[in-house]
Amino acid sequence: MSQSHSSFSHLDPSGAARMVDVGTKPEQRRTASASCHVRCLPTTIEALRHAALPKGDVLTVAKIAAIQAAKRTDELIPLCHSLPLDSVQVDFLIEEDAIQIHTTAATTAKTGVEMEALTAASIAALTIYDMCKAVDKTMVIDGLRVTKKTKA
Amino acid sequence: MSQSHSSFSHLDPSGAARMVDVGTKPEQRRTASASCHVRCLPTTIEALRHAALPKGDVLTVAKIAAIQAAKRTDELIPLCHSLPLDSVQVDFLIEEDAIQIHTTAATTAKTGVEMEALTAASIAALTIYDMCKAVDKTMVIDGLRVTKKTKA
Amino acid sequence: MSQSHSSFSHLDPSGAARMVDVGTKPEQRRTASASCHVRCLPTTIEALRHAALPKGDVLTVAKIAAIQAAKRTDELIPLCHSLPLDSVQVDFLIEEDAIQIHTTAATTAKTGVEMEALTAASIAALTIYDMCKAVDKTMVIDGLRVTKKTKA
Amino acid sequence: MSQSHSSFSHLDPSGAARMVDVGTKPEQRRTASASCHVRCLPTTIEALRHAALPKGDVLTVAKIAAIQAAKRTDELIPLCHSLPLDSVQVDFLIEEDAIQIHTTAATTAKTGVEMEALTAASIAALTIYDMCKAVDKTMVIDGLRVTKKTKA
Amino acid sequence: MSQSHSSFSHLDPSGAARMVDVGTKPEQRRTASASCHVRCLPTTIEALRHAALPKGDVLTVAKIAAIQAAKRTDELIPLCHSLPLDSVQVDFLIEEDAIQIHTTAATTAKTGVEMEALTAASIAALTIYDMCKAVDKTMVIDGLRVTKKTKA
Amino acid sequence: MSQSHSSFSHLDPSGAARMVDVGTKPEQRRTASASCHVRCLPTTIEALRHAALPKGDVLTVAKIAAIQAAKRTDELIPLCHSLPLDSVQVDFLIEEDAIQIHTTAATTAKTGVEMEALTAASIAALTIYDMCKAVDKTMVIDGLRVTKKTKA
Repeated sequence: MSQSHSSFSHLDPSGAARMVDVGTKPEQRRTASASCHVRCLPTTIEALRHAALPKGDVLTVAKIAAIQAAKRTDELIPLCHSLPLDSVQVDFLIEEDAIQIHTTAATTAKTGVEMEALTAASIAALTIYDMCKAVDKTMVIDGLRVTKKTKA
Repeated sequence: MSQSHSSFSHLDPSGAARMVDVGTKPEQRRTASASCHVRCLPTTIEALRHAALPKGDVLTVAKIAAIQAAKRTDELIPLCHSLPLDSVQVDFLIEEDAIQIHTTAATTAKTGVEMEALTAASIAALTIYDMCKAVDKTMVIDGLRVTKKTKA
Repeated sequence: MSQSHSSFSHLDPSGAARMVDVGTKPEQRRTASASCHVRCLPTTIEALRHAALPKGDVLTVAKIAAIQAAKRTDELIPLCHSLPLDSVQVDFLIEEDAIQIHTTAATTAKTGVEMEALTAASIAALTIYDMCKAVDKTMVIDGLRVTKKTKA
Repeated sequence: MSQSHSSFSHLDPSGAARMVDVGTKPEQRRTASASCHVRCLPTTIEALRHAALPKGDVLTVAKIAAIQAAKRTDELIPLCHSLPLDSVQVDFLIEEDAIQIHTTAATTAKTGVEMEALTAASIAALTIYDMCKAVDKTMVIDGLRVTKKTKA
Repeated sequence: MSQSHSSFSHLDPSGAARMVDVGTKPEQRRTASASCHVRCLPTTIEALRHAALPKGDVLTVAKIAAIQAAKRTDELIPLCHSLPLDSVQVDFLIEEDAIQIHTTAATTAKTGVEMEALTAASIAALTIYDMCKAVDKTMVIDGLRVTKKTKA
Repeated sequence: MSQSHSSFSHLDPSGAARMVDVGTKPEQRRTASASCHVRCLPTTIEALRHAALPKGDVLTVAKIAAIQAAKRTDELIPLCHSLPLDSVQVDFLIEEDAIQIHTTAATTAKTGVEMEALTAASIAALTIYDMCKAVDKTMVIDGLRVTKKTKA
């Protein structure tokens, strides 16, 4: 059981929350990718294509929100370290009844950036939700997960 | 088509993003509930029960992160108004291979709090993800949606 | 001279900075408009028209930055009160060698929103500056001022 | 035209906004200086000299606001990277009908600090505007620009 | 014992943290005062009088930090509500071997402002500590408490 | 006297506040520890043991608030540099009529982390104060000081 304790890096042997000390870890280029999708009505996608997608504002607003949130991940997720992000990339894929969101965060730091990529994807999805909620009450955000990690 | 334009409250007639003017709307008590779940391995739930759930730190940290994020929704979702929240409630239900998250935000203001409830649920889920990611690479956050709205 | 002291609402009779007590002022609908312009090379405007203005991303990013900054004016300008903004409007006018920025902030509160409108215009201008600085070293931001105030 | 696309470092080949990846750039000592001026009535300068300049509070408040804003440039300007600032310097020059503001930001990082210097100057100017707006309705902030950059 | 549970307004009957729902409480003018003191060497006070107190920068910086922190109390203290502050007042009293700090926060809201007054005093003290720590290793911050509350 | 001026690292020779330039200082592992205590009624400690300490929520909430505040020290203390924290540790010791708080912050950076450790201890104390203020009007926060510094 003390084994399972030590498996959770954010818990000390007594089971209490802690911030891991990354002081002795080397600075390395690290990237993480995440994705999720906003499921919605086909008519919402259609309306978006007419009203907003040509100009792109909905997706641009979502992208900016995602980048801004990624830079503040340490303020949102309590035990995350503050990391200087080299870049945050946010891409969208419009499907018939969903908008896919793909994010990649990169840093040169002592610890990984999964949480930054996940936070970016999550806030992009919520921003799309916010901009479409007046026309579609059925939206659900699904499948938020890490899709790739690299360390070089 | 101009009809579909006006359906998206955050888009002006030209399709550009805008912040809605809520100046003439009355202040009303409004609540919104949201939920999502973190799907994970049964062994993760089991390990959590041994290591962390008795003491409760994982869920308490997630709850605090959720409340803090709800209060800052206007900083995360670009076109959201700043609202004084009357309360934010965060509850968890531990299942065999998932943790359900249920949130309710309440305000007395000119506009609703769906985004606050959704943001709280989303950040609670990400905080749990962060605390368990060292022991479980299979986690997915699913089913984030609004479950209820009231206005009185 | 003590007369001039009391003229500066943010200075107490001894000349020290203070935050004005707005406790007895009535809540009123208040708006303020501000403007400024980013002066640049005609070739920058031309390049923007080719590369970015059709899609609109430069101006959309500037608008979102402006709205986000307006909501945080109280964190940026030390003696400003926290105000719940009813709306923030940001418009652009592309000229031959400049981009004009016009903002309007509105609130229903005990004190005015000039600083919110000015902060929005200022951050919109800086965001455009940031996005064009690689192609134009001559840019200057000029003419930042309040253009209108209303109280109803 | 695709040439002009690539000239804007914050736009990808399709004209969409992006955050530049600075992962392969070397860390270097970089500084940037910026300036602007708050133009006002000569009587405002005179009143400031009587009421506030001896004690210095107006300029000290503006300086602190500028330093604080410079440290948060990445939260204000969406595509800026988070940089650890080595220092922020803010100086004022009182003229007959204007207050000049000069700022210098320094970092040891992978990208430059023009936006930090500009943000500091801009917020210093807005803070002075805020403290004098009750006595002078004619103020205009002019000439905000980068005056110098170094990289060593 | 369930009696003692309900005495802690921030704990639910099971002992878990919660944010109190203030939705049914009336908006009232509320003030709270707090104080603390930074104890230091007499030579530090003397040096401050020579170097910094005439110009006042140390105390002005501390005052601005205190006001800024009071406005963000809800971001610092997890279960605090976001309150629109009518004013924050910060005063200093220089003694032979200490600097006393007195703060008063005021709001017109559904809940009190003790935490805002305490946060202001605390951050003022820490800012003074920061500015004097190079010359005095003996400083201690003592006596932080609420001194008065009003509700009208 | 000019000697005393230069002793205060945050004051320039004229006595004005400034941010120290740390550009030429080497990056080193640095830690700082701080402590303080919340003095309260013995009955408060007893009630806490019954209601909240078994589950631990009060102390967990205080710990999370402390870690979050430490990461934002540069936003709270105006002349502090932004530092990437390697870790923040927060421990509590329950006495008969007080709760002791011990914090340690660590970084690998160009300047020390006393202010981060002090800010963490201060916000932990205020969070405990907030959670107990409904049952105890006598609480005082005392003895906030740096207890140890290391540099390697």
